[in-house]
Amino acid sequence: MADSRFFATAGPFSLGELARIAGAEIGGEAGSASRVYRGVAPLDVAGAKDISFFDNKRYSDAFSASRAGACIVRPDAVTRAPAGMALLVTADPYLGYAKVASAYHPPVALRPGISVRATVDPSARLGDGCQVDAGAVIGAASEVGENCHIGPNVVIGPGVRLGNGCAIRAGASLACCLVGSRVLIHPGARIGQDGFGFATGPKGHVKVPQLGRVVIGDDVEIGANTTIDRGAGPDTIIGDGTQIDNLVQIGHNVVLGKGCVVVAQVGISGSTKVGDYVVIGGQAGFTGHLSIGNKVRIAAQSGVMRDVAEGETIGGSPATSMREWLRRVAVIDRLARKDKGT
Amino acid sequence: MADSRFFATAGPFSLGELARIAGAEIGGEAGSASRVYRGVAPLDVAGAKDISFFDNKRYSDAFSASRAGACIVRPDAVTRAPAGMALLVTADPYLGYAKVASAYHPPVALRPGISVRATVDPSARLGDGCQVDAGAVIGAASEVGENCHIGPNVVIGPGVRLGNGCAIRAGASLACCLVGSRVLIHPGARIGQDGFGFATGPKGHVKVPQLGRVVIGDDVEIGANTTIDRGAGPDTIIGDGTQIDNLVQIGHNVVLGKGCVVVAQVGISGSTKVGDYVVIGGQAGFTGHLSIGNKVRIAAQSGVMRDVAEGETIGGSPATSMREWLRRVAVIDRLARKDKGT
Amino acid sequence: MADSRFFATAGPFSLGELARIAGAEIGGEAGSASRVYRGVAPLDVAGAKDISFFDNKRYSDAFSASRAGACIVRPDAVTRAPAGMALLVTADPYLGYAKVASAYHPPVALRPGISVRATVDPSARLGDGCQVDAGAVIGAASEVGENCHIGPNVVIGPGVRLGNGCAIRAGASLACCLVGSRVLIHPGARIGQDGFGFATGPKGHVKVPQLGRVVIGDDVEIGANTTIDRGAGPDTIIGDGTQIDNLVQIGHNVVLGKGCVVVAQVGISGSTKVGDYVVIGGQAGFTGHLSIGNKVRIAAQSGVMRDVAEGETIGGSPATSMREWLRRVAVIDRLARKDKGT
Repeated sequence: MADSRFFATAGPFSLGELARIAGAEIGGEAGSASRVYRGVAPLDVAGAKDISFFDNKRYSDAFSASRAGACIVRPDAVTRAPAGMALLVTADPYLGYAKVASAYHPPVALRPGISVRATVDPSARLGDGCQVDAGAVIGAASEVGENCHIGPNVVIGPGVRLGNGCAIRAGASLACCLVGSRVLIHPGARIGQDGFGFATGPKGHVKVPQLGRVVIGDDVEIGANTTIDRGAGPDTIIGDGTQIDNLVQIGHNVVLGKGCVVVAQVGISGSTKVGDYVVIGGQAGFTGHLSIGNKVRIAAQSGVMRDVAEGETIGGSPATSMREWLRRVAVIDRLARKDKGT
Repeated sequence: MADSRFFATAGPFSLGELARIAGAEIGGEAGSASRVYRGVAPLDVAGAKDISFFDNKRYSDAFSASRAGACIVRPDAVTRAPAGMALLVTADPYLGYAKVASAYHPPVALRPGISVRATVDPSARLGDGCQVDAGAVIGAASEVGENCHIGPNVVIGPGVRLGNGCAIRAGASLACCLVGSRVLIHPGARIGQDGFGFATGPKGHVKVPQLGRVVIGDDVEIGANTTIDRGAGPDTIIGDGTQIDNLVQIGHNVVLGKGCVVVAQVGISGSTKVGDYVVIGGQAGFTGHLSIGNKVRIAAQSGVMRDVAEGETIGGSPATSMREWLRRVAVIDRLARKDKGT
Repeated sequence: MADSRFFATAGPFSLGELARIAGAEIGGEAGSASRVYRGVAPLDVAGAKDISFFDNKRYSDAFSASRAGACIVRPDAVTRAPAGMALLVTADPYLGYAKVASAYHPPVALRPGISVRATVDPSARLGDGCQVDAGAVIGAASEVGENCHIGPNVVIGPGVRLGNGCAIRAGASLACCLVGSRVLIHPGARIGQDGFGFATGPKGHVKVPQLGRVVIGDDVEIGANTTIDRGAGPDTIIGDGTQIDNLVQIGHNVVLGKGCVVVAQVGISGSTKVGDYVVIGGQAGFTGHLSIGNKVRIAAQSGVMRDVAEGETIGGSPATSMREWLRRVAVIDRLARKDKGT
């Protein structure tokens, strides 16, 4: 069970209700549509009243040994379920779990209002239903949509625009940016500061004014302590539905397409354009001014130094095709072993 | 045009005025000193009333197709300019652009005063012309020079000293540090916390008091969410004019010389000394106690594990000379291709 | 001498007292138990009234040239000491120094009380002796133990529990976590936000509720701007005595054992389990769902993609045994040199 100190709880739900929520079919021999479950739990700790999920074959043993009363599984797992476990069968158990878990633990409802300890400029406009917490500072001429949560000690700079249903967590800061709806920005994220721009003259480095913005689409999530610099002249753009993890660096003028997944500690240098549905593994880095096609997949720790065509999978530093990278790793390994033998 | 929600605008300026500002000569066939331009814009969106710049051959096509009324260019680009484009010719177009863009979009003037929502210790001293925003906390016996901007929710610890004309952005925190003049510290930067110092005894790790400071020169810029630990006994030192990007880690006792450029996500371990005018590519890492000479250039993602002599260019992990690194990459590539053939 | 702007000072202490504090023996020819020293200083700046330490052979020259009045050394350094330097001899000079430096510069005493500029929910419970600074926000039903320091602009979320003697530095934020005693959390650290969890469905990425917590043991230190996500269902766990440096990313469900050392900018992906006393070099990365044994040592910038058995030392990306990694580096180097010759 989720810790009630931190999470709201709804339910219980019957297996029939859960099948509907998950978009799954009741399967196996033990499922009764009317039987009731009180919550979600991992395979190894779930009990008879809990529903779990099984979607990663690394956890096959935990699945076989699980005492979960019900489990969301793929069709091919049905025959391997422990006796007495009710099953919800779907092609995508993790997605089904996401929906079931959200039903049991709905997000905490906003408490609309502005803390007396928040500082909101008189010229700022806030939509209905917003919650603004203590220490938040909202600048002049900014516009916040409906039902937004501005967390404690958040700073929204002058002129910033947020859509509806956004949540900005503790201590994050936004400047010079236009943000869509249903955007979640985690604690300490830094959006819209000056990019790293200077021209080197005879008297040292001269700052180049950074005159673009950060433009963020709808349904974007931006991780804790991630930094996204504003454009130098063009804008920095984050497409709809893109998910960015913690401690990621996104330089000025970068364009990230729709539905991308950017894992923690990735760094994307200035003016690189990334297509839609690109997946970037942790700690990968990009030089600037590159063009990365749609649906490219990039291994963790890659060093990307050239343009990448649509659909390619790449790895290594300098990055090359995945096939080539694995061949390089293999040949080095073989040579090192041969070397040992001599 | 820069978004007026976020940027102040001056001008318009005549081509003659712009030539003087940029330190450039009017060139090409279309330039008239009295013609007036209203602002700066990137090559691909600039119109007849805008001035742009062209300094990176990747953008040759955009230059040829640009409708910018004027453009700052190198001498060798003059003959390739589109018909009707006025030219400002200089050996360093980017530097010229920096000056022109600063003229069109001067920094927002400070509004001197201390927010009633700021908390300033009675023993702190602030120079004339400072702006202290809501939520800022300024500690005992600290000294802030003239014309400084202490942003919202910034924390200036006890005893910290800042020179004149500094700007500390939202949510940054400074402790145990002495900072020069005209220093810009971006949001969420962390300066002067304890270094990572402990001695491992029979009962576990014992904290070693970190008794040094961070000493930062003049004209330094420190990126968003960058961390600079204070010295363990000696000081951590950042030289005049050094530019540090976002999410950089600088360990205790590190010395960075003057005019260095440190790109995002670099990590420099404790007690490493870096000379003047060193350029460090993104995500490079250094072990501790190294000595890096003046004007060294280090490729992105390098792993520097040995001292580096003045003027060397290095790359790879473990890092070696650039020439050697490229040879390594080439030989692995060739072996992998040969392997494929067998 | 430590800068009195930033550090409290105690003493002076006699050599006899210092020997007792350090757990060391007076050695060499110059040591007099009654002679008095006023403070600690690095080898190169220490004078006759200072005590220093020598524990890293890189600094042999500095030791030989030092004018420190006393020095904490290993037995094998005794004969190399400059004439007139009193010695404290111990098997672990760095540990001895840690104790001596702590005696000279004890931590600043807390000033118990809650700033009128702090916002503490009426249902929060704080133990005796706590200091809560301006701008701190402490949420509903949270519990803070005795003698804790909640720094300026810190955010403690609803339901969070802290043990005794913790210090949370400027601007850090904690949510959905249970924290032990004597835990030090540096500025800007982000603990307990949502992990990076979503299921990808036909309509894009669907957020998976993150229903676990972060559970932190006793005597843990967490670096500036480090991010630790809460569990997805299980908890994220940090064992007793573990030391985490700046800008580290720890994903959901990660388990770190006791006494680990995690250097700056490391990234550990979700559900990886790390044993006790593991040492992880800077910028190393781990894929998810791995199992890393006790006392494993991992080189900086490693890319760990497989399970690692107890006691192994590994390096490289993809990571392999240290021996194998060094062999790979050597063979590449040799081939590249041979290539040059042809």
